Amino acid sequence: MNDASIHSTLGQMKKGLGHLASFLAKATAYAQAKGFDPNVFVGMRLAPDQFDFARQCMMVCDNAKLATARLTGKTPPKHDDNEKTLAELEARIASTLAWLDTISRADFDGAAERVITHPRWEGKCMSGADYCVEYAVPNYYFHLTTAYAILRHNGVDLGKRDYLGALTMRDLA
Amino acid sequence: MNDASIHSTLGQMKKGLGHLASFLAKATAYAQAKGFDPNVFVGMRLAPDQFDFARQCMMVCDNAKLATARLTGKTPPKHDDNEKTLAELEARIASTLAWLDTISRADFDGAAERVITHPRWEGKCMSGADYCVEYAVPNYYFHLTTAYAILRHNGVDLGKRDYLGALTMRDLA
Repeated sequence: MNDASIHSTLGQMKKGLGHLASFLAKATAYAQAKGFDPNVFVGMRLAPDQFDFARQCMMVCDNAKLATARLTGKTPPKHDDNEKTLAELEARIASTLAWLDTISRADFDGAAERVITHPRWEGKCMSGADYCVEYAVPNYYFHLTTAYAILRHNGVDLGKRDYLGALTMRDLA
Repeated sequence: MNDASIHSTLGQMKKGLGHLASFLAKATAYAQAKGFDPNVFVGMRLAPDQFDFARQCMMVCDNAKLATARLTGKTPPKHDDNEKTLAELEARIASTLAWLDTISRADFDGAAERVITHPRWEGKCMSGADYCVEYAVPNYYFHLTTAYAILRHNGVDLGKRDYLGALTMRDLA
């Protein structure tokens, strides 16, 4: 991964955060149509020892935020992980996106060669390039897909198009 | 995404296929410990209108195979999508990996600029770079995570480490 590729990969995470916001909107609409409190989704999970929906959403946000912070050296905003409603999760996504929008392509100069550390990697590090492709990307999509799966399992009308979003197409010559 | 970054991104898919094989091994071990037929996992799904576990595994394989084929111009092996047991899914993964092992870094020369077509994109195309980051990668991790989630939801002892695998670490200077 070179710097430009890391930048475009992280840019894709911003797009996915927009999709996550649309999952929340669909969950809210579903709950309203069925007449239940949309915030029951917040505590749902696919297994008793798995993070719940709210935490999955926070982790999507934090994977995008912390990967960007580690790969650019920029200081990210702090979030307290205390969201308890879909509206609060939506605000968390918006706050994450607002910060990501302050990061430019130039901020990724040198990203591939950066020394990336992590609280859990005692005494060890990864290169920015390896961290991006081996950790940041798979981990980000893991939580985005798990958030999707929790809603899908509980009846929300989501499909692959909601997950992939619009693609950069052009006409075939 | 430049050619080298596309190559390393696709290489990560091979690693994930190895993880998928280990999910199958853990599912088999769990079924044996509980005394049920491991192949009941094959038809499981998280929602009635979602692809079942077998199909999710096939799609992980095909996302890796077809993304590599489209980005290199190489002809992939044909698979008939008729796997009905965990052993057959394991063989599908092995067959996919055997073909991916024949693809070299040089085969990705020009990948970023390739014109990528898809049966469902009538009259439209994507650049190789956009296709990799917007479609191939998110779609691949979607199916890998969904396969994981189906097993996790049904009691198999999987954790994030099974999904991420070993990371390329070095000692902090």
